[in-house]
Amino acid sequence: MNRQILQILRQVEQGKLTAQEAMLQLKLEPFADLGFAKVDQHRALRQGVAEIIYGEGKTPEQIIGIASSLQEQGQKTVLITRLSPEKAQQIQTQLSVQYDQSSRMGILGQMPEPDGIGTIVVATGGTSDIPVAEEAALTAEALGNQVIRLYDVGVAGVHRLLAHLEELMSARVVIAIAGMEGALASVIGGLVDCPVIGVPTSVGYGASLNGLAALLSMLNSCASGVSVVNIDNGFGAGYLASMINHLEGKA
Amino acid sequence: MNRQILQILRQVEQGKLTAQEAMLQLKLEPFADLGFAKVDQHRALRQGVAEIIYGEGKTPEQIIGIASSLQEQGQKTVLITRLSPEKAQQIQTQLSVQYDQSSRMGILGQMPEPDGIGTIVVATGGTSDIPVAEEAALTAEALGNQVIRLYDVGVAGVHRLLAHLEELMSARVVIAIAGMEGALASVIGGLVDCPVIGVPTSVGYGASLNGLAALLSMLNSCASGVSVVNIDNGFGAGYLASMINHLEGKA
Amino acid sequence: MNRQILQILRQVEQGKLTAQEAMLQLKLEPFADLGFAKVDQHRALRQGVAEIIYGEGKTPEQIIGIASSLQEQGQKTVLITRLSPEKAQQIQTQLSVQYDQSSRMGILGQMPEPDGIGTIVVATGGTSDIPVAEEAALTAEALGNQVIRLYDVGVAGVHRLLAHLEELMSARVVIAIAGMEGALASVIGGLVDCPVIGVPTSVGYGASLNGLAALLSMLNSCASGVSVVNIDNGFGAGYLASMINHLEGKA
Amino acid sequence: MNRQILQILRQVEQGKLTAQEAMLQLKLEPFADLGFAKVDQHRALRQGVAEIIYGEGKTPEQIIGIASSLQEQGQKTVLITRLSPEKAQQIQTQLSVQYDQSSRMGILGQMPEPDGIGTIVVATGGTSDIPVAEEAALTAEALGNQVIRLYDVGVAGVHRLLAHLEELMSARVVIAIAGMEGALASVIGGLVDCPVIGVPTSVGYGASLNGLAALLSMLNSCASGVSVVNIDNGFGAGYLASMINHLEGKA
Amino acid sequence: MNRQILQILRQVEQGKLTAQEAMLQLKLEPFADLGFAKVDQHRALRQGVAEIIYGEGKTPEQIIGIASSLQEQGQKTVLITRLSPEKAQQIQTQLSVQYDQSSRMGILGQMPEPDGIGTIVVATGGTSDIPVAEEAALTAEALGNQVIRLYDVGVAGVHRLLAHLEELMSARVVIAIAGMEGALASVIGGLVDCPVIGVPTSVGYGASLNGLAALLSMLNSCASGVSVVNIDNGFGAGYLASMINHLEGKA
Amino acid sequence: MNRQILQILRQVEQGKLTAQEAMLQLKLEPFADLGFAKVDQHRALRQGVAEIIYGEGKTPEQIIGIASSLQEQGQKTVLITRLSPEKAQQIQTQLSVQYDQSSRMGILGQMPEPDGIGTIVVATGGTSDIPVAEEAALTAEALGNQVIRLYDVGVAGVHRLLAHLEELMSARVVIAIAGMEGALASVIGGLVDCPVIGVPTSVGYGASLNGLAALLSMLNSCASGVSVVNIDNGFGAGYLASMINHLEGKA
Amino acid sequence: MNRQILQILRQVEQGKLTAQEAMLQLKLEPFADLGFAKVDQHRALRQGVAEIIYGEGKTPEQIIGIASSLQEQGQKTVLITRLSPEKAQQIQTQLSVQYDQSSRMGILGQMPEPDGIGTIVVATGGTSDIPVAEEAALTAEALGNQVIRLYDVGVAGVHRLLAHLEELMSARVVIAIAGMEGALASVIGGLVDCPVIGVPTSVGYGASLNGLAALLSMLNSCASGVSVVNIDNGFGAGYLASMINHLEGKA
Amino acid sequence: MNRQILQILRQVEQGKLTAQEAMLQLKLEPFADLGFAKVDQHRALRQGVAEIIYGEGKTPEQIIGIASSLQEQGQKTVLITRLSPEKAQQIQTQLSVQYDQSSRMGILGQMPEPDGIGTIVVATGGTSDIPVAEEAALTAEALGNQVIRLYDVGVAGVHRLLAHLEELMSARVVIAIAGMEGALASVIGGLVDCPVIGVPTSVGYGASLNGLAALLSMLNSCASGVSVVNIDNGFGAGYLASMINHLEGKA
Repeated sequence: MNRQILQILRQVEQGKLTAQEAMLQLKLEPFADLGFAKVDQHRALRQGVAEIIYGEGKTPEQIIGIASSLQEQGQKTVLITRLSPEKAQQIQTQLSVQYDQSSRMGILGQMPEPDGIGTIVVATGGTSDIPVAEEAALTAEALGNQVIRLYDVGVAGVHRLLAHLEELMSARVVIAIAGMEGALASVIGGLVDCPVIGVPTSVGYGASLNGLAALLSMLNSCASGVSVVNIDNGFGAGYLASMINHLEGKA
Repeated sequence: MNRQILQILRQVEQGKLTAQEAMLQLKLEPFADLGFAKVDQHRALRQGVAEIIYGEGKTPEQIIGIASSLQEQGQKTVLITRLSPEKAQQIQTQLSVQYDQSSRMGILGQMPEPDGIGTIVVATGGTSDIPVAEEAALTAEALGNQVIRLYDVGVAGVHRLLAHLEELMSARVVIAIAGMEGALASVIGGLVDCPVIGVPTSVGYGASLNGLAALLSMLNSCASGVSVVNIDNGFGAGYLASMINHLEGKA
Repeated sequence: MNRQILQILRQVEQGKLTAQEAMLQLKLEPFADLGFAKVDQHRALRQGVAEIIYGEGKTPEQIIGIASSLQEQGQKTVLITRLSPEKAQQIQTQLSVQYDQSSRMGILGQMPEPDGIGTIVVATGGTSDIPVAEEAALTAEALGNQVIRLYDVGVAGVHRLLAHLEELMSARVVIAIAGMEGALASVIGGLVDCPVIGVPTSVGYGASLNGLAALLSMLNSCASGVSVVNIDNGFGAGYLASMINHLEGKA
Repeated sequence: MNRQILQILRQVEQGKLTAQEAMLQLKLEPFADLGFAKVDQHRALRQGVAEIIYGEGKTPEQIIGIASSLQEQGQKTVLITRLSPEKAQQIQTQLSVQYDQSSRMGILGQMPEPDGIGTIVVATGGTSDIPVAEEAALTAEALGNQVIRLYDVGVAGVHRLLAHLEELMSARVVIAIAGMEGALASVIGGLVDCPVIGVPTSVGYGASLNGLAALLSMLNSCASGVSVVNIDNGFGAGYLASMINHLEGKA
Repeated sequence: MNRQILQILRQVEQGKLTAQEAMLQLKLEPFADLGFAKVDQHRALRQGVAEIIYGEGKTPEQIIGIASSLQEQGQKTVLITRLSPEKAQQIQTQLSVQYDQSSRMGILGQMPEPDGIGTIVVATGGTSDIPVAEEAALTAEALGNQVIRLYDVGVAGVHRLLAHLEELMSARVVIAIAGMEGALASVIGGLVDCPVIGVPTSVGYGASLNGLAALLSMLNSCASGVSVVNIDNGFGAGYLASMINHLEGKA
Repeated sequence: MNRQILQILRQVEQGKLTAQEAMLQLKLEPFADLGFAKVDQHRALRQGVAEIIYGEGKTPEQIIGIASSLQEQGQKTVLITRLSPEKAQQIQTQLSVQYDQSSRMGILGQMPEPDGIGTIVVATGGTSDIPVAEEAALTAEALGNQVIRLYDVGVAGVHRLLAHLEELMSARVVIAIAGMEGALASVIGGLVDCPVIGVPTSVGYGASLNGLAALLSMLNSCASGVSVVNIDNGFGAGYLASMINHLEGKA
Repeated sequence: MNRQILQILRQVEQGKLTAQEAMLQLKLEPFADLGFAKVDQHRALRQGVAEIIYGEGKTPEQIIGIASSLQEQGQKTVLITRLSPEKAQQIQTQLSVQYDQSSRMGILGQMPEPDGIGTIVVATGGTSDIPVAEEAALTAEALGNQVIRLYDVGVAGVHRLLAHLEELMSARVVIAIAGMEGALASVIGGLVDCPVIGVPTSVGYGASLNGLAALLSMLNSCASGVSVVNIDNGFGAGYLASMINHLEGKA
Repeated sequence: MNRQILQILRQVEQGKLTAQEAMLQLKLEPFADLGFAKVDQHRALRQGVAEIIYGEGKTPEQIIGIASSLQEQGQKTVLITRLSPEKAQQIQTQLSVQYDQSSRMGILGQMPEPDGIGTIVVATGGTSDIPVAEEAALTAEALGNQVIRLYDVGVAGVHRLLAHLEELMSARVVIAIAGMEGALASVIGGLVDCPVIGVPTSVGYGASLNGLAALLSMLNSCASGVSVVNIDNGFGAGYLASMINHLEGKA
């Protein structure tokens, strides 16, 4: 932004613009251009990364439109989240989208090569948490991360989790996904030395209160290094994990 | 009860009572005598067990009165729960009560010899859960049980818990006490093969919601064999554990 | 576990294994073998007990696969919980499963002979609580317990409950199942001298809050010896009751 | 009201008032006088009944002022609710108020003779519910009702309640007061054939949620004839019970 | 009950029964016969009153069976609550049931002549509350009460309510039914001098929380004489109102 | 109203009515005529404004009846809110109603010319909030206001909002509509100097609790000048905004 | 803001600033100067209006400092909200602050002359709501509004409210303040034709849930023109009411 | 761990240990040594980092003991969190602890030199959030991070936040701390391209529900890269931020 404003100011200095004209330009210039719009610019710097379309509430036509336009701009991978099977079918009549029933995601093009610094472990308490886990895992993969899946390693059988200590302890970020009592985040948080992102899921019944019990449980984790995203928010966890996994070291 | 009714009936049979008079006696006889009042009768069968006074809401004078009367009846151990230090001091001027500051319990007389079948393990997630744990442990001991205390073995450091596998696995009942995320009950429930009684505690802050988070977490335990009592209800857990620990085997 | 580790160590001692090889074996040996995996080993000791498959979230094919494999291993009884009528029908095309519509459970093979120490009473407040009660009762029966059903004995007609005092007072464990105000657990807890497992149900409307009212009510029981499992968790109650009913007496 | 309006209209008819003047009078006449103000007029018809002052949030001076003025108007009994001991002491320096510590009520003058149709039973689950019960009972007595107190007859010892069947079944209204699981209202509702007013109390801890558990429990009562007032609202229950107990039969 | 026990006692007195045999009879005699079962006996005293079947959770066959049996016993009016249109249609193939779509109630036979002491006013805040109101009104009518319906008189147009002051003030009981802000109970409670039964409804959206807002509002009514039943519980309100409306005056 | 009462009073004065007859007329005259019924009279003063029918819970026939009657009375614009597509179709067979699928509103006749004092800005956080926004916007337009729509200007991309500072700062009222974290109301409230009406929407999942999170967020706004209406209540916000936008200045 | 930026741009145009220097100035210039900071500038335009200091969380010294500095700048009225009596006393040792115990507000200097367009009515349901009401009323007065107080006009005695119809109907804004069932906002909303700002208060007990019941009630108001601010937020309501009352009419 | 086990195994291989002795050693070896105990080992690798003692629930004596022992072991910095002023004073009699009143933290020794990769920005919505912010900031500093504090930059004055864009956009992690509506996390999340850790605070009143409103708001953030820790958990946020800030880049 500074450069753009400076250019305008320089044009005034050089008499190429009057103060009035500069004023107008500054006002017309959308604020996005003033530096607040991070995503696109930064994205541009990391070629090959997937673009992600939030599918919920969009018609198949809208999705086809956006996806086609992205492909035309040279985007190699396009991910569509929260995509119902019906919409997926309609989209597949026009675009060669691969549909992952479990995570309800559509993938257009090829997954990028991992360019993250370490690996991201995606762990779930039970098998019913897998749809959320796949949303997280595919999001992370589409954003250029290597993902290790550890499914069904819930705390009611802590040995299953301990059998995977090595994978856990070598991860750069762990995404811990669990419904019901949501204790997985705490137990993992106590085992590893890297950030743990807790994702409560709405799996369960009765006093699980559609994921609130797991959410509260994770927020109360007595393990350090644990933070939490919204219930069932696999995408958010995958995105944040990727962000952390792409943080560069010291120059 | 049957005997008492039978006696009345026999007196009618023998002409000692008219039907009318019997009718009146049956009506006057409090229903307690008709068999619904279990505690006292059953207590009578297990000599040596402590009597327990719920101290909250009772004046020191009331407590002294009840305790003295129990001692006079030959009760060797009297436990007073939820007893404030102030009340304890006042009572100590008249009775030789030992006061346990942590659990806020007063003990009159000697603890009975354990006569339960196995051992009861009382485990806590953190050190702040100890007051509730001591209420559970002392209650169980006063009711004639051998108690093993495993404190500060919370799930954020699962190795601390695993270091005590042997004690856990040899228990007849485990009381799992934890605030914050309350995952201890699940993890223990997955390790042992005996009933686990979860006691959520009000330890924590913010989203712990004064113990509700731990309560919900324990209710959602995916481990089998886990049930839950009210928040901070150490007494209830100790009492139930003792009940289970005194269940006889096959005749 | 100790024996298995000891065997490995002995093989090293005897020169049959190098330290490296032993190391490898210890690492390959899943942690389950290191003693944390209780279920299978313990199960093995109590032949004839049913194996239970949690049907929710599993496809008919998956269920058929697991059940067949269990039968092949000689399992005489297999119970499938939370099984929808549709899935049951599909499974019945390949396996001779008996389907209990009320509890939504499928039974493969014969129920085992009761080998528990006493009887388990399953009581419900109303007729609408019966599905949860049957889940509890069938689970307990499949795990080798004698079950007495006392249905529709809710506290709004306390005489119905009192008419069954004898059954209640001779039980080794009582499962008290109720929706709406959930007072059944307290009233029974005051009548009997054995553990009472409360199961709140989601029966009710309005301020029943899908079972939360009954849950809170049961947790606040002023009767001693009452603990609670999750809303509608008939299976969990049946399992815990069986566990308690199989606890052996003193050697 | 009709009479007052009619009088004004008649004065217009008779030329004593112009339409304009009548208009003004109708507007000046507070609506209270138009018939909406029930309490005073109706009160006037039932002499001897106590006047009640809500003490909370009023200064001792204000209370003394109101009470004195009521006495001067010939009021024989004045009841002051929610009165702290400190305020009571200050008031006692100027008025001969009897203070009931348990219910936190002050009584000025003599209780009226009962003029209600039947008796009101005030029952509590435990001894800690007595303050609320006394607020209800004294309110009812001050409004001219005969009150039978059945305290500590909670459902965890249902025989205690059954021992008082006769009193319960002969009542015209029952006030059932209970904290914790609040089941008392349901059990009584199932035993009696008259209206039952449930009063949940804030007695309890943890999952009692300051009386919410008991409130929800009572609202979900499966017994017919039960309705509920606010938590700890002894006054409201006593007032409503008195209202029902003074309903006349057929002319 | 007394009579039955007395008969047994008399038989002992007369030597027709031994004490043992009497004992047995008393034990076999269900407790219902010992006086706790109020409904039937009392019902018997008030001939002509409708019997009410709770339709929810019962099959059409079950309902037909119960209703037929009641008719055979001479019951003139049978009301079926919470009856879906589908079930109603099935029942109508065998019984001449009139179906009220709004309240989802079925009526078999003729409504009884009103024999209550006064009138019951059923008032609603809006038109969407009418289904609950009709459940209350028809229940009350079936139990022998004269009902005045005041629908759509909510507090956001208080003049509509005031236009019916006369009906309100001449009622013996008022049932105030409202969703959303539920203020109707308070406003009516302030206008009338008789018991007001508040029925919150689940009408509304968003912060109405399915009737919880109205429920809380009614419980907090600052008008005396107001009590509350469960959300949407029209039947409960109608039943309680009838109970109050049949309370006899002084002998 | 005054005039109507005055007319009656004058007729009495002139001997055209007796006091009795006047009394009767006053009683028959619905209270609405006594001045409490604001809507109609005031509406009458602002010709051309639309009449609004709340469609939910009304049958197509009822809506057609009301709408036709309004048109016959000369109403130029009739708006129907919360109208399902199915009902709209049925109504369109008889009336030329334009249906707006997004806001689920039907429009009969022409929108009036804006006669408000300033402009109303309707802003949304995301595109999923648009249905609620259109309900607000169309309501405001139908009531004679000029509306500027700023959609998808949520706080997670604050530059989008800042790009519209000019429109925001020149508004007389702003309606801020947002689900999820609902921060839009606060941010706008901090930018503008006019009343901001917050409308939380039920858009979101998990911890959005169907709009409760946004509702609480808006109520806690630390910006002055912000008030809130019910979740998804676009109509209420549009109505209130119009009311404020039609407040006249000093005479 | 535009003028300030334009000035900088003009200085560049005139060669008085280099582009670099201008850049620096633009960056140093806090964004507040770029137009987002409304309060101060707008305040400047309406001389005589009070400045308001939020007292909570500030030390007496801080408050004295801010207030003195404001007075030195010529501010005639300074209001301090949420001021404890202790702090007030300390402040009074150095500044001649008048302290209003009820609203916990301190007033420095003289209240300004009203310059709003109409009057603001502040109505409360009970006398306990007066502290919040006074916070609203004094805030509005300090911001230059004429305020009419209607206290204790709650809906349980609707005639008290109707007696003040004239004041209500002539208001430009009404602030309706009520705890407990919070129905006041709805009833007033149905009577008046101007914006109604609901302020729920934390007055009440039990199911009032510290004001949540009143809050939900107000949000569910079926009267149009009602919006709500946070519980006990008298200041917010007074500020918003003043804002609406100063909205100018058409030029 | 592997090395330690291998050593034991090698000793067996070499005949230095019998299998039995090895077995014993493996059992005695605390599980911490088997690799699950991360903290100490890893800590050892990063010399100079502070050790942190959680002060709540520990006596001054306990804290002095732990701190002294840590100092003796050569620990240069010891931080004590949640330390009351009273305890701090007692500790200061024996150790030269610097006490920070705002964050309630005690510091023993010198803060380490920052060795993190980038800077951590700690931003708060208001001044009342500063105690939590200081807990986060001091924790991060004690763990070797450079911290930039941006206090009182809440969203109701978004220009204050935008004035610090540069600091925000150059951060490696941002901690966003806010009570009330908690929107700060979302707005910052939309501005920066690095992980944002939201910390809701219990600042606020009424509908802030002690921080729950802010918590829900942050969990619903529509900005990507935002995760949340418990209410008021400044320590947790500072610890996690430090963890992220010390993640190394690619080797």
